[in-house]
Amino acid sequence: MGLLKGIDPLLTADVLHILRSMGHGDKLCICDCNFPAAQVATNSTSKKHVILTVTLPEALDAICSVFPLDFFEQKQAVYMGPQEGVEMPPAGVEVVSSMKEVIMKNCGGDATIDKMERFSFYEEAKSCFAVIQCLERRPYGNVILWKGCVGPDGLDLKP
Amino acid sequence: MGLLKGIDPLLTADVLHILRSMGHGDKLCICDCNFPAAQVATNSTSKKHVILTVTLPEALDAICSVFPLDFFEQKQAVYMGPQEGVEMPPAGVEVVSSMKEVIMKNCGGDATIDKMERFSFYEEAKSCFAVIQCLERRPYGNVILWKGCVGPDGLDLKP
Repeated sequence: MGLLKGIDPLLTADVLHILRSMGHGDKLCICDCNFPAAQVATNSTSKKHVILTVTLPEALDAICSVFPLDFFEQKQAVYMGPQEGVEMPPAGVEVVSSMKEVIMKNCGGDATIDKMERFSFYEEAKSCFAVIQCLERRPYGNVILWKGCVGPDGLDLKP
Repeated sequence: MGLLKGIDPLLTADVLHILRSMGHGDKLCICDCNFPAAQVATNSTSKKHVILTVTLPEALDAICSVFPLDFFEQKQAVYMGPQEGVEMPPAGVEVVSSMKEVIMKNCGGDATIDKMERFSFYEEAKSCFAVIQCLERRPYGNVILWKGCVGPDGLDLKP
């Protein structure tokens, strides 16, 4: 495998195939290294479970460099939050903060990124198009992105 | 299937998968609508025969927007020329001229593009990574590109 001009090297052939195959409204799950990715992927549209051996912010930055978000919905992404009665540890707060920065950097800074309780997140992930798992070891490094449209200017299409 | 930001819409998931899978020194055959593409593809590395329903210059421009050429070889591309005793018709001269312009536009203007006699071209095509066929109806709308490397600046790496 070799590289392509203008495309982040982390976007392997399999990742590019997944991202380009997804249409408007399809969802992508990007998860940490503790997530039950293989199991969740068996329920996904493509059944694909691809690994990128970097942290969540690194994987997310590469993906968001080409992936348009769905600004025709009320939210563009959700991240996993703790189940009831559990507090998010500092490392989780940190990874969620980085995640938000990376998404904002790539979409023009106006995405809505909501929290979703752990078990609801697993359910939501099962209806994704594919699961891309990274080597993020901080807890709660899991996010679902809604795919939008690319406008005639080549950027995220917004209403 | 939907689009990706910053990537030509003609580069479908299957085309992106092929282009990204190719390494330094692998060759890509891009051919017109009379070329025996399916047969040649059975001999190729990936066995893949993908169709883009546009002219050769359009398909080539999309591909060359991301595809680095091999500037560590004496030539970066070859196009099909007539067999001995046959003259290239004006439509062929025209498509070859457009082909050269499109390649030059995308690689910095210093590629070497040689002519290869028809039957030698078929042999060379059999050792390609894949065959991408377009709907070019002008004769001799066939070209083989050598894949190079992307430099740290994101452009074609040159010695």
